[in-house]
Amino acid sequence: MNKYLFEINDFSTGNDDLMLHETLFHNANGYLGVRSNYEEGYPEGYNSIRGTYINGFYDFAEMKQAEKLYGFVEEKQTMVNIVDTQGIKLIVDGEEFSMFQGTVLKSSRTLDMRKGITKRTILWRSPNNREIEIVITRMASFTMLPLFTIDYKVTAKNFSGEVKFLSTHIGNVQNYFNPDDPRVAAESFQHVHVEKTGAQDGVSFISSKTSKSNLSVWSVVKNELSKEGEVQQRVHSHSIDCEISTTIAQDETVSLYKYTIVCDSIRYEDGREHALELMNEATAKTLAGLYEEQEEFLTRYWENASVDVDGDDDLSMAIYYNLYQLLQSVGKDRFSNVAAKGLSGEGYEGHYFWDTEMYIQPFFLLTQPDIVKNLIEYRYNILDFAREHAKIMGHTKGALYPWRTIMGKECSGYYPSGSAQYHINGDIAYSVINYYLVMKDLDFIADKGAEIIFETARLWLDAGHFHEGKFMIHNVTGPDEYTCVVNNNYYTNTLAQHNLKWAVKFYELLESKNMTSVVEKIKLDHEEIETFKLAAEQMYLPYNKELDINPQDDSFLTKKVWDFENTPKDKYPLLLHYHPLHLYRHQVCKQADTVLAHFILEDAQSLSTIENSFAYYEKITTHDSSLSTCIYSIVASKLKQYDKAYEYFGESAKLDLFNTHKNTKDGIHTANMGGNYMAIVYGFGGLRIKEDGLHFAPALPKKWTGYNFKVRFEDSVILIKVEGDNCTFSLQNGSEKSIHVYGKTYELKDSLVIPLEEKSHA
Amino acid sequence: MNKYLFEINDFSTGNDDLMLHETLFHNANGYLGVRSNYEEGYPEGYNSIRGTYINGFYDFAEMKQAEKLYGFVEEKQTMVNIVDTQGIKLIVDGEEFSMFQGTVLKSSRTLDMRKGITKRTILWRSPNNREIEIVITRMASFTMLPLFTIDYKVTAKNFSGEVKFLSTHIGNVQNYFNPDDPRVAAESFQHVHVEKTGAQDGVSFISSKTSKSNLSVWSVVKNELSKEGEVQQRVHSHSIDCEISTTIAQDETVSLYKYTIVCDSIRYEDGREHALELMNEATAKTLAGLYEEQEEFLTRYWENASVDVDGDDDLSMAIYYNLYQLLQSVGKDRFSNVAAKGLSGEGYEGHYFWDTEMYIQPFFLLTQPDIVKNLIEYRYNILDFAREHAKIMGHTKGALYPWRTIMGKECSGYYPSGSAQYHINGDIAYSVINYYLVMKDLDFIADKGAEIIFETARLWLDAGHFHEGKFMIHNVTGPDEYTCVVNNNYYTNTLAQHNLKWAVKFYELLESKNMTSVVEKIKLDHEEIETFKLAAEQMYLPYNKELDINPQDDSFLTKKVWDFENTPKDKYPLLLHYHPLHLYRHQVCKQADTVLAHFILEDAQSLSTIENSFAYYEKITTHDSSLSTCIYSIVASKLKQYDKAYEYFGESAKLDLFNTHKNTKDGIHTANMGGNYMAIVYGFGGLRIKEDGLHFAPALPKKWTGYNFKVRFEDSVILIKVEGDNCTFSLQNGSEKSIHVYGKTYELKDSLVIPLEEKSHA
Repeated sequence: MNKYLFEINDFSTGNDDLMLHETLFHNANGYLGVRSNYEEGYPEGYNSIRGTYINGFYDFAEMKQAEKLYGFVEEKQTMVNIVDTQGIKLIVDGEEFSMFQGTVLKSSRTLDMRKGITKRTILWRSPNNREIEIVITRMASFTMLPLFTIDYKVTAKNFSGEVKFLSTHIGNVQNYFNPDDPRVAAESFQHVHVEKTGAQDGVSFISSKTSKSNLSVWSVVKNELSKEGEVQQRVHSHSIDCEISTTIAQDETVSLYKYTIVCDSIRYEDGREHALELMNEATAKTLAGLYEEQEEFLTRYWENASVDVDGDDDLSMAIYYNLYQLLQSVGKDRFSNVAAKGLSGEGYEGHYFWDTEMYIQPFFLLTQPDIVKNLIEYRYNILDFAREHAKIMGHTKGALYPWRTIMGKECSGYYPSGSAQYHINGDIAYSVINYYLVMKDLDFIADKGAEIIFETARLWLDAGHFHEGKFMIHNVTGPDEYTCVVNNNYYTNTLAQHNLKWAVKFYELLESKNMTSVVEKIKLDHEEIETFKLAAEQMYLPYNKELDINPQDDSFLTKKVWDFENTPKDKYPLLLHYHPLHLYRHQVCKQADTVLAHFILEDAQSLSTIENSFAYYEKITTHDSSLSTCIYSIVASKLKQYDKAYEYFGESAKLDLFNTHKNTKDGIHTANMGGNYMAIVYGFGGLRIKEDGLHFAPALPKKWTGYNFKVRFEDSVILIKVEGDNCTFSLQNGSEKSIHVYGKTYELKDSLVIPLEEKSHA
Repeated sequence: MNKYLFEINDFSTGNDDLMLHETLFHNANGYLGVRSNYEEGYPEGYNSIRGTYINGFYDFAEMKQAEKLYGFVEEKQTMVNIVDTQGIKLIVDGEEFSMFQGTVLKSSRTLDMRKGITKRTILWRSPNNREIEIVITRMASFTMLPLFTIDYKVTAKNFSGEVKFLSTHIGNVQNYFNPDDPRVAAESFQHVHVEKTGAQDGVSFISSKTSKSNLSVWSVVKNELSKEGEVQQRVHSHSIDCEISTTIAQDETVSLYKYTIVCDSIRYEDGREHALELMNEATAKTLAGLYEEQEEFLTRYWENASVDVDGDDDLSMAIYYNLYQLLQSVGKDRFSNVAAKGLSGEGYEGHYFWDTEMYIQPFFLLTQPDIVKNLIEYRYNILDFAREHAKIMGHTKGALYPWRTIMGKECSGYYPSGSAQYHINGDIAYSVINYYLVMKDLDFIADKGAEIIFETARLWLDAGHFHEGKFMIHNVTGPDEYTCVVNNNYYTNTLAQHNLKWAVKFYELLESKNMTSVVEKIKLDHEEIETFKLAAEQMYLPYNKELDINPQDDSFLTKKVWDFENTPKDKYPLLLHYHPLHLYRHQVCKQADTVLAHFILEDAQSLSTIENSFAYYEKITTHDSSLSTCIYSIVASKLKQYDKAYEYFGESAKLDLFNTHKNTKDGIHTANMGGNYMAIVYGFGGLRIKEDGLHFAPALPKKWTGYNFKVRFEDSVILIKVEGDNCTFSLQNGSEKSIHVYGKTYELKDSLVIPLEEKSHA
């Protein structure tokens, strides 16, 4: 089995399958994303989310509030469908190819994660019995981010005749909308307007502008035929058609190579010229050359990123699929981040959430920390918007990061499960701290990281208050969106404490090294630092002695427990069937909340409290969020409840590939994919990043014969291989390191073999 | 001074004054309301809210939610501007009268609350020096509710010539909108569409239909001239003009009598025919006859409703004004209630809130209980909608009244200060109980009242739960809209307890009298009653021993106190300048909450707790709501803090007449007007309605030499007269009663003179 190869038979003509496959086989590279729509389109009456997106490229859209209260967000950003260059119709001897006419004899789709391409392979018999084989290869280039290619090969199986391609380049595209689904746009709105179309030397171009955000995007398309043919280009006001005809002999293969370059005005000052230059560069390399570059890039990627599981092929594939999607989704510059659905669809409108910091960054931090540096730079870039947002929310000091955003302004329409999630401040701070712990890059902290840490720390001081010797944070929402606007959410308070502690640490560290320009810049004084220290020390963390658990918030345990017994299965996810006020009134969790806090800051509580809390919350958590089962898996591992850990892990691994949440059509669940990685590395591997270095507590799930993964730490790469009764740690490169396994410290010089703890074997 | 006469000079040509006077001098009768717009209109560029409304007549309007969550209201009702029959232009010898041209030599507006009419009196010199006196009398008839009349008299002062009236009847009217003000509609939308216009025998008519609610309204207009003249009627597709010309001699007075009848399809099956019949009836009576009927009606009204204060003329006027507006606003049938702004404007879109039960009914209950019976019948009529609403909010049993509505469906766009105000259930139950205590009308209880009580009681059981031997109600909002969605709001819990107690009492009472059809109808069983009893007994009422106060809710006292010192005056009302989440995070109250509970259910706590609570909440209450100062006045009276009581009372009395909240242009504040009555009768008079009868504890404010009012109780009317050192209780009619004064019981046969308690003299 080739675990880099994901393949399905594709005779799907149902709406749901079509849209699901559009997502699953999309091509993206962190900058550009193209859904896997059929080049030839679908017949009338079929739903399709046909889209091409640029990460971080947005338009503003009105967000009407039923009642306008002060500070309510009335304008959101939305990821824009920018252009459609997917269109290729094929006509053989006057018969147009369609999956919905004639006979589809064979049809498959493939994603090759080693080569970085997708393929459609079809054997089709036309109504008049012409048989053709079609192989369509697509690629979003990792080495030339603005490039997307389609390589359309036709082979005549039982005839000779004429073959004609009708290749389109369309500018007046719209975003998908569905008035019945709160998770996608409710109204049709033209976000991009074509300003200019043209064609020159066989290359067509379109300049478009967004409606309200004043951003431009330039797309350039070139069609090349593998043999001589007749070309007719027609330039319309919003599109360009290119008709290419030639002859085809029996058993001959004719190919159309379609190159698309897309540049936006966020990154490129002279985008049109740049796009044309890149087009020349790309076509000069030829597709073969570009494929080679792509494969080289991915070979380097997998070198560190691979997580190999022996003994479960399906799962192994799912893990590779997830890690590949993370690479496709993650922004590669300071203008972008990771959208909830990556670049695979329009769900959540391309917004960035806390998902990046808490679910996705851990993977990149341990494999490609430069990407994390970019992601933090993005947060640094939007710090001024966070300061402004804090003011709107009533604060006189500090910065409050937007709960959901593209360019930095808050886009939450419903603040109780939006802006009220102040923990996003702590999440971002946590990620900066972790980056520092892994890379020890104090220059970056002095330059950018510390400013984030200090401004978020200030916000806690302003939002919270001292009450009877405790520092309390009122009226915020934790991760669990079924319990909103509460006092002293345990997760929020622990993260705030961590944030405040590290604000003090970084302050002292920078002061000791005379790297205090940020301190002066933001006028941070010693007195403020003293208050940070005090607030951290006196931080109130809810604890119930009788149950030996951390209540999720001050009043959580006094609520009525949700009546799970009398809740039919078709009422899940609960948010689609119950009024939020009703949900909030009960003990019921959408997702890991306190349990997440117990994972990321495990030293804040005793093991018994963590264990009891896990048992308590497990009973009342629905996992209606895709951010939940991975965390439950990790904590189950920590508690040596390996069967449970494995079960949660499996649910998480297959979420998109098996469409278990029934909404993968709107896009992949990137956070779950990152979480799934964590369930292996942090869960079964027991990895933790702490001030004294890396900790491990490996266990081997029963169903596996072994597994291995690599992590980067400081200047080194370590391979962790669990097999049989042992775990082997091998230093791949870099200097020797102290590592901690099952709580004991070892010096890792070359390699170390440590027997698995008996009990940890699942 | 005639305290029935409110008069102002009216040289106002500023926008704000114009709109304010449109409200202050509006004519209404509980069914029909007409804002006091200038008949001749305003020049281009002036804002005006030109409207005619029917109480309870609505259209549906879309209410977009920024994020759609389950159960969020997406369609509201809105009170509709139905027709414009106010228009009369006056042309003398070719010169058109306008307040904005020529010279206004004298101008005044008058409201005569004894006669039930308003008047504009103008002495005007035209640009060409013609002087005319204009007297325009308007009336919304209390004896023929669909009737509105304008009596337009012109006297030529220094010339003879031609006089021409252009009287209009316009169907295509719109509601006022202002995209910047959350309290009125944000978008222009045509709610009524003219279906037919016509004219016959000097009578014009328009049939209109609403856009979405499928309701019809018929308007009929007749113009009569006091002398012979030439009449030209022009029927257009959406309006009818009537031009009437005649001659006028110097010192001659010519009058135009314009009758409007408006009937709607909610009350009238054959509204058009009915309107025509009523028009005949009205014109047959002539204006003189109608004025006489109106005055007779009002004489009877004031007979019981009068509250006389000696020693403060301004205040005396303000009180009369308020009581008159209550009569103008209150619905007189089971299809309507009292809108927050009565029929005087479009603020809050004509919605009915808890204001009716808690602020307005007490006045009518003590003076005209039949009106209260109607208001309760309205609530009974919408009980099925309340049951449906309960289901939407997640409840399996009971009824939850909508927080704001016209026809019964919830119209809250923002549930934290809308649907979450479950106390509306308790408020309605409280009003039913009070009606029973005053009228002892068990038939009505058996027929309708008990069903309300039982269904609201059921809701408490479903919304709350028993926790450690206490009955708790989580996640609701009390009256204070600066503290939303809390656990165990003291006000809510006390009212729920009252509701549950009385559910048990009524059950037992009805059972003992074999009046159990309602019990069978709604399948109430004995076990449920036992649970009501237990929940009432174990109802958790927050109490803080240290402070000896009732905390507003479970977490109120742990919040940070609002920084009043550093809040500039221009930041009030706070809701217009701070995000709700920020407000909710602090100890700051928009209005009386626990203090209101201490007024209405004073026996639930000791006097010291009430006193300490008053002091505590007073410091943190902004009175940004118009429902607050009257309650503070009452409780200050109870605590014998008479100076304070008087100050709060004064603020409340003059709110609209002096436009102290700066928004009277959108309509009067009916709840405050009712509250102002209560501040006298419940406050200074110390009246309470209890199971053992009426209680009084009269005091005389320093600034007054005396005051008196009447109350109806069971079959009797009692006059309470406070003067000098005594309070005299006189039985006006009906059987003798036990009354309680300063805690002692007296038999009131004829009259009783009781010395004012020394300390109570303010």
